[in-house]
Amino acid sequence: MTRVLIHLDRDAPEGLAAQVSAAIRRAVQSGQLAPGARLPGSRSLARELDVSRTTTVLAYEQLAAEGLVASKRGAGTFVATPTALTSPPRATGLSWRLSRRGEALASMPPPALRSAGPAVPFRIGAPALDRFPVARWFELARQRHQRVRASDLDYGEISGLRALREAIATHLLAARGTRCDPDEVVIVGGAQRGMELLFQTLLDPGDEVWMEEPGYTGAKSALRLAGAHAIPVPVDDDGLDVDAGIARAPKARLAFVTPSHQFPSAVTLNAERRRALLEWAHTRHAWIVEDDYDSEFTYASTPLPCLHGLDRHGRVAYLGTFSKSIFPALRLGFIVAPASYCQRLKPVRFASDIQPPFIDQATLADFIAGGHFERHLRRMRALYAERLEALRTAATKYCGRELVVRPVRAGMHAVGMLKVSAEHVARAAAVRGVEVMPLSFYYSSAATPLNGLVLGFSACRAEANARAMALLAECIETVSRGG
Amino acid sequence: MTRVLIHLDRDAPEGLAAQVSAAIRRAVQSGQLAPGARLPGSRSLARELDVSRTTTVLAYEQLAAEGLVASKRGAGTFVATPTALTSPPRATGLSWRLSRRGEALASMPPPALRSAGPAVPFRIGAPALDRFPVARWFELARQRHQRVRASDLDYGEISGLRALREAIATHLLAARGTRCDPDEVVIVGGAQRGMELLFQTLLDPGDEVWMEEPGYTGAKSALRLAGAHAIPVPVDDDGLDVDAGIARAPKARLAFVTPSHQFPSAVTLNAERRRALLEWAHTRHAWIVEDDYDSEFTYASTPLPCLHGLDRHGRVAYLGTFSKSIFPALRLGFIVAPASYCQRLKPVRFASDIQPPFIDQATLADFIAGGHFERHLRRMRALYAERLEALRTAATKYCGRELVVRPVRAGMHAVGMLKVSAEHVARAAAVRGVEVMPLSFYYSSAATPLNGLVLGFSACRAEANARAMALLAECIETVSRGG
Repeated sequence: MTRVLIHLDRDAPEGLAAQVSAAIRRAVQSGQLAPGARLPGSRSLARELDVSRTTTVLAYEQLAAEGLVASKRGAGTFVATPTALTSPPRATGLSWRLSRRGEALASMPPPALRSAGPAVPFRIGAPALDRFPVARWFELARQRHQRVRASDLDYGEISGLRALREAIATHLLAARGTRCDPDEVVIVGGAQRGMELLFQTLLDPGDEVWMEEPGYTGAKSALRLAGAHAIPVPVDDDGLDVDAGIARAPKARLAFVTPSHQFPSAVTLNAERRRALLEWAHTRHAWIVEDDYDSEFTYASTPLPCLHGLDRHGRVAYLGTFSKSIFPALRLGFIVAPASYCQRLKPVRFASDIQPPFIDQATLADFIAGGHFERHLRRMRALYAERLEALRTAATKYCGRELVVRPVRAGMHAVGMLKVSAEHVARAAAVRGVEVMPLSFYYSSAATPLNGLVLGFSACRAEANARAMALLAECIETVSRGG
Repeated sequence: MTRVLIHLDRDAPEGLAAQVSAAIRRAVQSGQLAPGARLPGSRSLARELDVSRTTTVLAYEQLAAEGLVASKRGAGTFVATPTALTSPPRATGLSWRLSRRGEALASMPPPALRSAGPAVPFRIGAPALDRFPVARWFELARQRHQRVRASDLDYGEISGLRALREAIATHLLAARGTRCDPDEVVIVGGAQRGMELLFQTLLDPGDEVWMEEPGYTGAKSALRLAGAHAIPVPVDDDGLDVDAGIARAPKARLAFVTPSHQFPSAVTLNAERRRALLEWAHTRHAWIVEDDYDSEFTYASTPLPCLHGLDRHGRVAYLGTFSKSIFPALRLGFIVAPASYCQRLKPVRFASDIQPPFIDQATLADFIAGGHFERHLRRMRALYAERLEALRTAATKYCGRELVVRPVRAGMHAVGMLKVSAEHVARAAAVRGVEVMPLSFYYSSAATPLNGLVLGFSACRAEANARAMALLAECIETVSRGG
């Protein structure tokens, strides 16, 4: 006879019979009690558990009603053989055939090839997470926890916590030179989610969109998700070639741009192109989605204000992220757009993620409003500037003229131009355990890619970056020798 | 001459000139310094701030380069009149014309009509948030915070934290009688977001879907988001009428169901219909999306296992939410589906919300694994059973035979059937400040709706529900008198 350990809690709101049947049910479902196993008689079980016999009889009756046990006259109670109403074994190795749309979406390439685990040199867009003031952050979270009200735990503002939207509006004015109202801010689960919402509501399937070439794979995926038709528009040393865009797709509905620090080429969109782009959007009633993903970190003496700040006609949707400035696992970002548009997004969010989580938003609002955000950004700006400088020094030291780091005004990565094939060097580097992306990875068209590597410099200490640069120099050497 | 308060931090990583220019920039951008305002001379500003004159000259040069200030020979330095490169005033009252798809999405009705603020009697699907063990939750969050590693702050598992997926798999076996592997679980930002992902990948635009009639508005919105064609299939006392579904749309690709506690009619799908539904899905290679939204709270002696647990052929996608069992502002839910499908969802999530936030997931995992979840559910089950009983008593006491509360086996709401028009009663109740939804709100077709009210009983104390019931009795009385 099989024995099952049954713990009874005489203070529990559930009755004893329910507890007995629950324990046996669990044992059956977990396989601890196999089909056909004999259970103790109701009388002896009652004695063993020190409960009335009514309790054990009721428990067995409940299990019999569920089809989990069966009594054989004179022989006792047994675990039933599975029937249609108990969990049967499911077919294994199941594979669902997705819809055509599902198939297309599931076949999208990953945004970048990166290893799991701690940050490595050259990783792109990865903040120095070991320098994040975790203690301060968690102290703010604790304070929020202490004064949380039952209504904070309920559904809240669809557009995001007002305190956070206010903090963002204040920050943007000081840091990015653009003025906006909290009603023009929508908090989303990361900038990528913001793109999804913008493209879903501003574009119809088949609509043409200017996409920077080379450009951000995440934006390309979001455009595919929306069924839009991305038209690659070349990026040169001055950023997106607006004239080329007009020539290739004058009727595009939208332009996706990273003007402060183009992803991945690291150039800045110049003032004249900014004006031309805004003019085009105004004239054609097109939209500009400005992804200002790492512009908090500016190294140039004259940072250009964001496009949103230059836009008189309200054609720019600004996308901000806290994945670079706070940490990626927070999953918070924001859209800045006209208030009437933010209002119209609400039904779409009701149908999907509804709203961002409360505690994360509240903690972030306190972090910004308390000046900790500005302080952290200032520290990281200085740190990243140092790491960029060290990267340049190491490049010169180890690679000489074989790898030329182009100047950058902002952000968390630079571009190193090569004489030998960047793809070959990247492949050789992978073999040596160095993760580095060739620019060619970010091209969609057959255009001849810039022959360079994207060199993230923010994630790791300068010494680690320098060591990786020394290895990279060896790879360049190997490739030049035709190895 | 205008004065601007400038605080200098001589220990800051930024230079003094940068600090001076930043302070003036902020004053210009915030409007504190108006266009044309005269700034102090570089020499007198240097004296006032106790810095070298080089510092103030550099600061002014930087601002001049940005176009924010201009010098007039012999007259001094002035705040520049806005040019194309400083933030101009934007057109106000902007309104964006959405795409056709965007327009359709933005025009979706809200999921329910509910007031803002604390929970009120009859509110549907609202947990007793004042009974949530906040202190325990926050203690677990604090413990997680203390042992957080830099890599926890980085991007993590796209499908959600493995510890949480394991905790969910264990919980589902014990609580819902279904067996699944952590690789068959995907953590999402709420069950609504789970629906979006399932519909997006399993359906093509125009695909037919069985939708319970009456049915959950949130699911209807998610189907619209996916461009699917919802076919209303009647629900009777035994749940979804599977034969009617087969007659109306035999080739539907998917059926959306709430078998444990139908939303909103509160009936349970009987065993025979469960088998028929599974059989149909198996034969037609259709999917069943089982939204098990509030089944943790069972009152019947024989709870039926979930459809997912009965499914031999793997046609069921199970949707779970923590909005009822933990709290809505957490924004976490999950999908259970074949592992190969969960794997294929990854590129779709890379293009949208990427992953859920780390700390929330980790805290929830600890809450479940530590047994706190089971304990909380047990307490809430007992509490809600009491509140349901009190609701019945109050209904009999105040409304007599005018409002008949139908039996429920599970969940957080019951249905009260009326003789007079439920819509009229709901409207009269709204006038008296009582929030209550008529069943008719949840119908999509011209079918004659069940004449009843949806009575949430979980959110408020029994006495508050009883008082609201007394008011409701007055409304019924008024409507019967034709008032």
